[in-house]
Amino acid sequence: MFLPILFALSFLFSSSNAADFCVGDLYGPQGPAGYSCKKETLVTVNDFVYSGLAAAGNTKNLIKAAVTPAFSAQFPGVNGLGISLARLDLAVGGVVPMHTHPGASELLVVVEGSICAGFISSANKVYFKTLNKGEIMVFPQGLLHFQINSGKTPALAFVSFSDPSPGLQILDFALFGDDLPTDIIQETTFLDVVQIKKLKGVLGGTG
Amino acid sequence: MFLPILFALSFLFSSSNAADFCVGDLYGPQGPAGYSCKKETLVTVNDFVYSGLAAAGNTKNLIKAAVTPAFSAQFPGVNGLGISLARLDLAVGGVVPMHTHPGASELLVVVEGSICAGFISSANKVYFKTLNKGEIMVFPQGLLHFQINSGKTPALAFVSFSDPSPGLQILDFALFGDDLPTDIIQETTFLDVVQIKKLKGVLGGTG
Amino acid sequence: MFLPILFALSFLFSSSNAADFCVGDLYGPQGPAGYSCKKETLVTVNDFVYSGLAAAGNTKNLIKAAVTPAFSAQFPGVNGLGISLARLDLAVGGVVPMHTHPGASELLVVVEGSICAGFISSANKVYFKTLNKGEIMVFPQGLLHFQINSGKTPALAFVSFSDPSPGLQILDFALFGDDLPTDIIQETTFLDVVQIKKLKGVLGGTG
Amino acid sequence: MFLPILFALSFLFSSSNAADFCVGDLYGPQGPAGYSCKKETLVTVNDFVYSGLAAAGNTKNLIKAAVTPAFSAQFPGVNGLGISLARLDLAVGGVVPMHTHPGASELLVVVEGSICAGFISSANKVYFKTLNKGEIMVFPQGLLHFQINSGKTPALAFVSFSDPSPGLQILDFALFGDDLPTDIIQETTFLDVVQIKKLKGVLGGTG
Amino acid sequence: MFLPILFALSFLFSSSNAADFCVGDLYGPQGPAGYSCKKETLVTVNDFVYSGLAAAGNTKNLIKAAVTPAFSAQFPGVNGLGISLARLDLAVGGVVPMHTHPGASELLVVVEGSICAGFISSANKVYFKTLNKGEIMVFPQGLLHFQINSGKTPALAFVSFSDPSPGLQILDFALFGDDLPTDIIQETTFLDVVQIKKLKGVLGGTG
Amino acid sequence: MFLPILFALSFLFSSSNAADFCVGDLYGPQGPAGYSCKKETLVTVNDFVYSGLAAAGNTKNLIKAAVTPAFSAQFPGVNGLGISLARLDLAVGGVVPMHTHPGASELLVVVEGSICAGFISSANKVYFKTLNKGEIMVFPQGLLHFQINSGKTPALAFVSFSDPSPGLQILDFALFGDDLPTDIIQETTFLDVVQIKKLKGVLGGTG
Repeated sequence: MFLPILFALSFLFSSSNAADFCVGDLYGPQGPAGYSCKKETLVTVNDFVYSGLAAAGNTKNLIKAAVTPAFSAQFPGVNGLGISLARLDLAVGGVVPMHTHPGASELLVVVEGSICAGFISSANKVYFKTLNKGEIMVFPQGLLHFQINSGKTPALAFVSFSDPSPGLQILDFALFGDDLPTDIIQETTFLDVVQIKKLKGVLGGTG
Repeated sequence: MFLPILFALSFLFSSSNAADFCVGDLYGPQGPAGYSCKKETLVTVNDFVYSGLAAAGNTKNLIKAAVTPAFSAQFPGVNGLGISLARLDLAVGGVVPMHTHPGASELLVVVEGSICAGFISSANKVYFKTLNKGEIMVFPQGLLHFQINSGKTPALAFVSFSDPSPGLQILDFALFGDDLPTDIIQETTFLDVVQIKKLKGVLGGTG
Repeated sequence: MFLPILFALSFLFSSSNAADFCVGDLYGPQGPAGYSCKKETLVTVNDFVYSGLAAAGNTKNLIKAAVTPAFSAQFPGVNGLGISLARLDLAVGGVVPMHTHPGASELLVVVEGSICAGFISSANKVYFKTLNKGEIMVFPQGLLHFQINSGKTPALAFVSFSDPSPGLQILDFALFGDDLPTDIIQETTFLDVVQIKKLKGVLGGTG
Repeated sequence: MFLPILFALSFLFSSSNAADFCVGDLYGPQGPAGYSCKKETLVTVNDFVYSGLAAAGNTKNLIKAAVTPAFSAQFPGVNGLGISLARLDLAVGGVVPMHTHPGASELLVVVEGSICAGFISSANKVYFKTLNKGEIMVFPQGLLHFQINSGKTPALAFVSFSDPSPGLQILDFALFGDDLPTDIIQETTFLDVVQIKKLKGVLGGTG
Repeated sequence: MFLPILFALSFLFSSSNAADFCVGDLYGPQGPAGYSCKKETLVTVNDFVYSGLAAAGNTKNLIKAAVTPAFSAQFPGVNGLGISLARLDLAVGGVVPMHTHPGASELLVVVEGSICAGFISSANKVYFKTLNKGEIMVFPQGLLHFQINSGKTPALAFVSFSDPSPGLQILDFALFGDDLPTDIIQETTFLDVVQIKKLKGVLGGTG
Repeated sequence: MFLPILFALSFLFSSSNAADFCVGDLYGPQGPAGYSCKKETLVTVNDFVYSGLAAAGNTKNLIKAAVTPAFSAQFPGVNGLGISLARLDLAVGGVVPMHTHPGASELLVVVEGSICAGFISSANKVYFKTLNKGEIMVFPQGLLHFQINSGKTPALAFVSFSDPSPGLQILDFALFGDDLPTDIIQETTFLDVVQIKKLKGVLGGTG
C-alpha cells in the first residue's frame, strides 16, 4: 500500500546528486571553484570527518609554533562548502609570523593559554589585543596579521576560514625564502641589503 | 567589400565559448559549480528545451501528489544558469510533505486549483496562506515548508528555484526512510519510540 | 520544568534576524544587493504572497501581448532571494519583441497555447523552437531573445528569473523610444535613416 | 624630505573606506548582504574581538545543552566577512536536537569530551560518527543534523559557519513551538495527533 | 639550526595549490566557473603575461575599428580571477557597433584620441558623452552600448571587464549575420523586410 | 493608435529601478556590498564618466611614482559593478612598492615605457617579467606584488581591478607607517630593530 509513495518520490532523490556537497577528488581536474566531486556512491562519513588536527603540531622550531591546516587539500570534505579550519599550536614565546590569506577572512578562538593577535588595515590602522581562553577575534580578508603567544604557558587556538582553500602567504617566506632578487626586494621594500641577505640566509632565499 | 568586417570581428565570436551557457555534460566531471560543459558545437536548441514537465505526475500514491523536477540532472540546459523548475501535481487531498531545499529559494505559482502553502522561519514564526489560481508565494532558502491541496479539485503549480540543483530534503524520508537509528531519532526529536517505529514501517526505515 | 529549554534557546531565535529573508522596504535606502529589509516584526505572510499575476494582462495593444512582472519592486518578498517571476499573456499573433534581461537568466513554462521562443548566442547561433503546453525553455543571461504566439489561441506563460530584479531592455524601445540621436543609431546599427525615423514615430523617440 | 611620499600616497588610504571590513551597525538599515557599516573612524579593535563565548553556556535544561552564538547580531565584527562561530556546551547526556542552518555550512571541532554528530543528505543517506577531542566534522549547508554528547564527561565544541548570519531552525521548535495548526502538522509529517499535542505541550506550541 | 622552521611550515605551502590562481587549461573540461586549472608545476610567468594587445588591430574594414580581446580563451591567466581586458582601435570614423556583454560590466579608458561612448538603460534613458584622452566611462552589465571615434585622429582605448569571459553580442550580427528567419526578425523588431534583407546581404545572414 | 503599446509596457520600465546600476551615494549608509544607490532620477551621464585619471600623477616623491585611483570612493559610478581602475605614473626609477589588494585581482596594461612587474604566490614562487608597451599582466587576488619602471623613460600604465573597492595595503606603510610596536614588528618579521627604527623614521611610524 505504501509502495506508491516510494515510487512517486524516488526519482527526486536520484536528482539530488552533488546538490548537497562535493567531496573533493584530489586526482580529478580542478577548476576555479575547487576540486572535482568524488562520486556520491563512494562517499562515506569519513569524507566529512578529519582527525588530522587532533594531535598537537610540533613547535620545536625557530618560531616555536605550528599551523596544521584542514583545507580542502587535506580535508576534501570541505571542498565547495565555503569553509575550512586550521589548528594553531604556540609554545611559550611562539609566533605565527606576519602573513595574509589572499582568499578568506579568518576567525580565531583561543582554546588554551593567551594570544596577542592583530591585523593592519588598508588605512594603516593597527588593531591588536591580547585574547584569553574562549575569546575570539576576526581578521578581515587579505590583510596582514599575526599571532603571538603572550602568556607563560603553551597556547592552542583553532582558526576557521571563509573559504575551503584560503591560501597562506607568510611575509618572510615570500620575501626571503625564494629566488626574488635582492635588488628587487630592496627597491620595493626599502630594506637594507644587509638585512635582506641576513634573512635570505636564515630562510633559504637565493637570487 | 564587406568581407573585412567579417574578418575583423570573427575571432571575437570564437572567443565567446562557454561565456553564454554551459549545458551540463552528465558524464563528465562535476565540480562545486555544477556539471562540466557539453562542447558548444554539439549544443542544439533541444538542450535548452525540456518536455518532461508537460505530462501530469502520477498522484495515485499515499500523498496524492507528485513532484516532477527539471533540475540540472534532468534538464542539463540550466546548468550554471542559477535557476531551475519543477511541476507540482496535487490530487484532491494531496500534500507535498514538510521539506526543505538546502541550496535555493523557491517561488510557486498556482496554475490550477487552490493550494495552502506555508513555511516556518528560524524565529519559529509560521507564514501560511491559501493561494488561488495565479497567485504566487516565495519560500526563502533552506526553511521548512509544505503545500496542501486545499480545494475540491486537483491542483497544479510550477515552482522555480534560485539554483539549477536546489536539492530536496523531505523531513519524513530523512528521519524515517533510511537507517538513522531509532534511539538517535528519539534523542534528537523527542518523538516517542512507538511513533518512530510506526513511521519507519510506513517509509521503509531500518536501524 | 520545561522553562529551562525555552530559556536556553530563546536568544538563538532572536539572533536569526534577517538571516532567513529580507523583505524589501521600497522606501528605505537601496544598495547593490537590493532594497533595505522591512523590520521583521512588521513582516506577515502577505509579504511573501503576491496576487498581481492572477489577472491576465491587457493584450489590446500593438504587440498583442502583456508582460506583468513580479520583481522586487512589485513583490518585495523576493528581495535578496535570487529569484523572481513574470506573467506573459500573448493574444493570437502576440509577440514579446526582441529583448534582454541584463542581470538574469530566464526560464519559461507554457501554461496555455503554444509559443515560438528563441535566443541568439554571442557566437551568433540562433536557438528557437515552438513550445507546447507544459514545455519549458531556458534563456541564458543577457542574450537577445523573443517569444511569439505561434498558435491559433491565446497563449499564457510564466517566466522565472535568476534575480529578484532582472531588468528588461526591449530592443525597439532602447533604440527608438528615447532620445538617442538618429545619427548615432544609424552609425551603430547600419539601419537606414528612413527606417529609424519611421520607428521613432511609432515608439515616441525624439532626437 | 620624505613628506612627498606621504602626500602622494595619502589619498589612496582615504579611498580604502569599507573595502577591508564592514563592522555591523545594528541600528542602521539592513540589506540582503547584512547590516550597514559602522563608521570606520569609530571602529576599534574591540569591534573585532568578542568575549561572549568565553563562559560555558548553562546546560541545566531539558536538552542538557547550550548553544552560544557569535553571529553578526552578537558580534558585528563578522558582518560581511562570510564567517561566524558558536560555542556548544553539552553536559553528560546533552543533545543539540535535529536542526538546520538555512544559509551556511558548519564545521565542528571537539575541544573537550566526545560527541556523536551526524547529518542526513537529500538522498536520505545518514552520515554520523563519534568524534573525539580534536576531531572535526563538516555539515553541508541546509541539511538536517544533530550533535549528542556520547561520553561520560561534559563536552565542548566550537562550530564555525560559512556565513555571518547562518540562521538556525530547530526541527522541534519549528513544528511544535509555535502556532502551526495541529492538522497541518499531521498532514505534512504523518505524525499522530496525540504525539503532536504531547510535544506542543512541552514546547509551548499553540494552534 | 633553521631547518626546523622550514619543516614545520613546508606542508602549508603544499596545501596552497589552486588557492591563488587557476590558469586555464584550454584542453581540459570546462565548467560553469571557467576552464580547468593548468597544473601549478607547469605554470610560469608567461601564463600571467599576454602580448596580444601590443599591436594595433586592423581597422581597414567596414566599421574602421578592431576589437582585440584578452579574455580567458586568449589569455588563460585570467581564468577564475573575475577580470579581463580588450583593446579597441578606432580609425577616423571608426565605430564599435551597438552591442552587449551578457556577463560583465565594462570600464573604458581612452588612451589616444577621443571617443563618443554611450549606453541605454532598462528604463530607456540614454547616457552618452565624448571622452578625451585619459577619461574613463563605465558601462553597466548587459546593457546596449557603443563607441564612436568622434575625433579627427585615430583613437585607442582599453576596456576591462568584470569577468574573465564576458561574452560579446553585436546587435547587427545577432540579427542579420546568422540564419534567424526574416519573418521572425520582422515580427520581433518591427523593422521593414526590405531593411532586414539589405543588412542580411551585407552581414551574410541567411534564412 | 500606438498609445496602447506604450501603456502596456510602461510599468515594466518603472520596475527596472536599480536593476541596471547603483551609482554610489557617498553620504548614505554603506553595507557589505558597497554604497547606497543614488536616486535614479538624479543620475546623469556624468556619474558614469570620470576625468580624474586624465592628468598624470605627481611623481616628484621618494618613490618617483603616483597611483591615482578610480575606485567607488572617487568614481561612484562603479559601485556594485564589480570593477574599478587606477592610473600608474612611474618616473624614471619609479617604483610602486610591494603591496596587496585584499579584495581584488589586478590587470595591468602598459601604455608608455616599460615596467618590471611581479608577484609572489602562496607557494613562494616568484613570477616577474619586464613588460613593454601594450603588454598586460594579471596579479591574482591578495598576493604581494610590485611594479618598477625598468626603462629609461617615464612609464604609464592603467590597472583594472575585479572589485569597485579593491583596497590597497602597502607593505612598508603597514609595517612602518603607523603605531605597530617595534617589538611586535621584530617578532613577527624577524627584521632587526635598527632596520625597523630606520624605516619608521622615514615613514612616520611611532610606537
